[in-house]
Amino acid sequence: MPNPTPALPLCTPVDASGTAPDLTPLAVGAVVLDPDHELGAWQRLNREQTIPHVIERLETSGVLDNLRRVAGEGDADYRGFNFADSDLHKTLEAIAWESARVPSNLPWEAFTRDATALLARAQREDGYLYSHVQAHQDQEPWRDMRWGHELYVLGHLIQAAVARERATGEGDLMAVARRFADLAVAEFGPGASRPDAYCGHPEIETALVELYRHTGDRSYLDTAVAMIDRRGSGALGTGPFEPAYHQDHLPVRDAHEATGHAVRQLYLAAGVTDAAVETGDDALLAVLGDVWASAHGTKAYVTGGMGARHKDESFGDPYELPPDRAYAETCASIASFQWDWRMLLVTGEARFADTMETALYNGIAASTAVDGRHFFYSNPLQMRTGHDGASEYSPSERLDWFACACCPPNLARLVASLGAYVATGTETTARLHLYGQGEVRIGATTLSVTTDYPWDGRIEVTVDGPLETLALRVPAWSSGATVELDGDARPAAIDPDGFARVATHDGARIVLTLPMPVDVLDPHPRVDAVRGCVALRRGPVVHCIEQTDLPAGVTLEDVRIDLSVPPRVGAGVTALRVGATVLAQGVVRPSEGLARATAIARSSPASARSGMLPGRIAMRAVPYARWANRARGAMRVWIPTDEEDAGT
Amino acid sequence: MPNPTPALPLCTPVDASGTAPDLTPLAVGAVVLDPDHELGAWQRLNREQTIPHVIERLETSGVLDNLRRVAGEGDADYRGFNFADSDLHKTLEAIAWESARVPSNLPWEAFTRDATALLARAQREDGYLYSHVQAHQDQEPWRDMRWGHELYVLGHLIQAAVARERATGEGDLMAVARRFADLAVAEFGPGASRPDAYCGHPEIETALVELYRHTGDRSYLDTAVAMIDRRGSGALGTGPFEPAYHQDHLPVRDAHEATGHAVRQLYLAAGVTDAAVETGDDALLAVLGDVWASAHGTKAYVTGGMGARHKDESFGDPYELPPDRAYAETCASIASFQWDWRMLLVTGEARFADTMETALYNGIAASTAVDGRHFFYSNPLQMRTGHDGASEYSPSERLDWFACACCPPNLARLVASLGAYVATGTETTARLHLYGQGEVRIGATTLSVTTDYPWDGRIEVTVDGPLETLALRVPAWSSGATVELDGDARPAAIDPDGFARVATHDGARIVLTLPMPVDVLDPHPRVDAVRGCVALRRGPVVHCIEQTDLPAGVTLEDVRIDLSVPPRVGAGVTALRVGATVLAQGVVRPSEGLARATAIARSSPASARSGMLPGRIAMRAVPYARWANRARGAMRVWIPTDEEDAGT
Repeated sequence: MPNPTPALPLCTPVDASGTAPDLTPLAVGAVVLDPDHELGAWQRLNREQTIPHVIERLETSGVLDNLRRVAGEGDADYRGFNFADSDLHKTLEAIAWESARVPSNLPWEAFTRDATALLARAQREDGYLYSHVQAHQDQEPWRDMRWGHELYVLGHLIQAAVARERATGEGDLMAVARRFADLAVAEFGPGASRPDAYCGHPEIETALVELYRHTGDRSYLDTAVAMIDRRGSGALGTGPFEPAYHQDHLPVRDAHEATGHAVRQLYLAAGVTDAAVETGDDALLAVLGDVWASAHGTKAYVTGGMGARHKDESFGDPYELPPDRAYAETCASIASFQWDWRMLLVTGEARFADTMETALYNGIAASTAVDGRHFFYSNPLQMRTGHDGASEYSPSERLDWFACACCPPNLARLVASLGAYVATGTETTARLHLYGQGEVRIGATTLSVTTDYPWDGRIEVTVDGPLETLALRVPAWSSGATVELDGDARPAAIDPDGFARVATHDGARIVLTLPMPVDVLDPHPRVDAVRGCVALRRGPVVHCIEQTDLPAGVTLEDVRIDLSVPPRVGAGVTALRVGATVLAQGVVRPSEGLARATAIARSSPASARSGMLPGRIAMRAVPYARWANRARGAMRVWIPTDEEDAGT
Repeated sequence: MPNPTPALPLCTPVDASGTAPDLTPLAVGAVVLDPDHELGAWQRLNREQTIPHVIERLETSGVLDNLRRVAGEGDADYRGFNFADSDLHKTLEAIAWESARVPSNLPWEAFTRDATALLARAQREDGYLYSHVQAHQDQEPWRDMRWGHELYVLGHLIQAAVARERATGEGDLMAVARRFADLAVAEFGPGASRPDAYCGHPEIETALVELYRHTGDRSYLDTAVAMIDRRGSGALGTGPFEPAYHQDHLPVRDAHEATGHAVRQLYLAAGVTDAAVETGDDALLAVLGDVWASAHGTKAYVTGGMGARHKDESFGDPYELPPDRAYAETCASIASFQWDWRMLLVTGEARFADTMETALYNGIAASTAVDGRHFFYSNPLQMRTGHDGASEYSPSERLDWFACACCPPNLARLVASLGAYVATGTETTARLHLYGQGEVRIGATTLSVTTDYPWDGRIEVTVDGPLETLALRVPAWSSGATVELDGDARPAAIDPDGFARVATHDGARIVLTLPMPVDVLDPHPRVDAVRGCVALRRGPVVHCIEQTDLPAGVTLEDVRIDLSVPPRVGAGVTALRVGATVLAQGVVRPSEGLARATAIARSSPASARSGMLPGRIAMRAVPYARWANRARGAMRVWIPTDEEDAGT
């Protein structure tokens, strides 16, 4: 039976008394974003292009055939990685949120019913449902906790089932999920004796806590807590990667640094946050604060991307943030966004929403082409001239699918549920976390938000209903914010938590204005890989320069930025769906004529050390999220400044 | 029957008439290096520590057991990678060269005879000898050309057999090698019809050409040429890596860029050079020149290391040269050294010996601890504070063995044969390529070389015999070289090929003096990863700074170099076996107090942007080759200059 107050995708504290009223997640469907503005348009693209594309690919990539084989309805060989079932589960979750978002039209209800029925037929008598093991005679359930992904797949199944029941009230998928979940509780609950009774790829933890929130059955929470407590024993073993890859090197309570496989670390952190909230475990929350500081303070790209290393999709060392070989997996940015949301709900601190929007408008948005049907798996911050674009994991352009297809359906479920992250509260006290044009309905109160954010910093909110207090997030990037109430404008009074609070009334009109000049960012001095460069950010949007915007004959690598001319805002580009760009002064220092060597002695002849004479160009930077939508070619977020070459 | 003029390890043109007399490789044992000076001391360490260590590990790692199992003399499970046999072959090659180098004492002759007899017993009737396939009932020979490594292993067996026969005259190992080689010729010779009749890991090509040189049997050369001509069809297929990984993306004649797996690319280039020399194929040599320019002009570290990427041990894009995540596999530097030697013999151009010595004194030397028994597989140019040193492929310190143990025995064979690369020529005309104290005997001429190179640039050569011309390499890094003949010193007259030639006589005393100030190197402006940094090089020796040399409380990442005080030569360090260091002025700019973020807006409050007040320190840089021999800790070759922070 559903919880009587189902609310937010995947994070509803059961005991709302422990939560500030204005941090209460909203009911499904409470937020409707305008499809003609940024966030709503993204949701429309997701509905019209991405979700249909993903559904098609479930058929062509073999995901559905794998289940048919197990159900005895097909004989195709198993295809894909052993976690391929999760592609379907994430898609079903996306469809569920989308069905709640636009409930008048449910084009995929038949697909969902058919897929759910197929899952039910493929499911074993005991509840087990993992087609990779079921399709292989030589395999047995739960044998390989390190790489088996069974609990990971169950986690996504649970999330899909919760979404479907919350969004539509339909319990068919939940019945399948609970049978599998109850088997997992029996096998891995508090009484489990095997030392490796936890999954090599975290995800089950957050899902089980949410299932507890949804059903009220405490065995799910207890199982999640038990798995978290066991983790870090090293019982998963070592293979090509070290225990830290699986966050199995230290007990969770002792692991203060973000480490190992980035998606695993971030999904784990989300689940641990959920568990700590439900058990009131403040010590564990303090550890999570350290992990968060490690991740965001020393291991996050300016785009919000995380996980620098290609070799094992992992966080690297502190400040190891190469722009060209940034792995920055799309799913890691999504996971970071989801974890940040949980930290925001726990703490009420705006900084967690700041990092959510950094990831959303940059690391996550960059992954999807403007056509909604091509995707990046990794999201580099630099593409070199002459890049070998053959590899799936560092291609020169977005691809329509991947051997490991975790990212596209993950995007689909996130974008369909975006509205849930916009606001929290009750009809008398509420907070706005993300700004997008649309409506927020909370009980008898409706907030109408009018804005062209993130392209413009003016956010107008009109109140219809008994709202008494509205807290507006003032992003840390902003300076000089003002708040206008019924025509009376004054500098925003920002509380220590990063919100400006306004005493409102029925009919109130509030305007938050966030000035949006172009911010010039220096790297932290320990980020060696981009020393001597700057990045251009406007509002939350990070920009990049692309080869296609440069004059013929100019190579991107030869371009410097001349900061003696302050960068300024430029016009939008309709084809890229951006409302603004950045214009700057460039200096071209051709490197032809330099010594053909990767290092040049200062004592070398001048001819070997200076290229052709520099020239000046007007330069346009476009939002990073939209790079590689026009022509293949070089790109960079961090632009060398002209200062460093001045002496040569 | 051995070639009547066996000479150099692995590169003796059959038709000496096509070679300049002063580029003729010398006979085995012609060069004796002084064990109390740099190169000779390395050879002594190799003899006393590395070779015994490697032999022990052949037993403990299972390499010998694998063969015993195949020979029906043991039942241990197969252990290691499928190319584990090559660890033995390379070790046998090292022992052979070592036996020629110090022939009076052959401690490993019994080991060699036993191992050779074991190989003979394990060998199939048809000559096939590859224990991984032989140990597995479900495998068949030559089925997997992409990953099978059979021809790669044969290549190392051939090289070992050639070395043994040349060094000692013993033909036992050669008998084994030729049976396997003849099988490969039958299977993969010019008449082979399968499109994938070449190896996924090049190495067989150079070995077959050398076997041709050694035996005069042209079928070996023809088979090598046929394999080279077939390569690039894509017939090896794709898997986790793209065809370029195996240099199978383009025909060899059309592949002008160094690409893919670095060791594969460099071994292939060495073999193609050998084949092109023997067939007089100038067009192919021109392509090799392009590959060389690509590798050394855009994809080589200042240490001579190659192969930037961890994920696939590959060359990256041009100028993609991260210092922290430099893979720079030891075997790639060795392969580069071997290919350079072939290019030197073909062209007579000193630049190829320059890159040999860069690799030798830096990328290769760094791989071995001063104890001779611990090794780096990858050779980063930066180790960060807080580095996660767990991984075998990016450890904080050298390890005593590896799951993939290609590097240690490769080092052993290279160091044992170092003398062969020192000089070329005849008794009347000769060239010196590498400088080390010792004796060079060519027919009736003996050159006695006295020098403390690379710690000092004075090289004294006395001539005993009928030598008429001596060509001395003047490295490109040097400026102001002088040559003294019998007391008459004058500026060196450097020919276009990079050599200074001296007309000599019996009893002549020649002194080449290469001034060795500290060179300050800037990175090429396209090497983004080290922008704003300099490297310190003295002679061919690249230096680094280590945490252990800094004052207590100073973190390496906070150190800048102040170039207003020119770096100067410092004293040597006996424990590190270095004859000189570099002293410089450092500036410490503590980053505590900076914003906890990886990017900082210029508009941020000053408190977020400036750390504590800077301080000055005297700073010592040690030869990069000897880093991590004292304490674990941070290290860097490329040091940020203080200029860039001056404005903050």
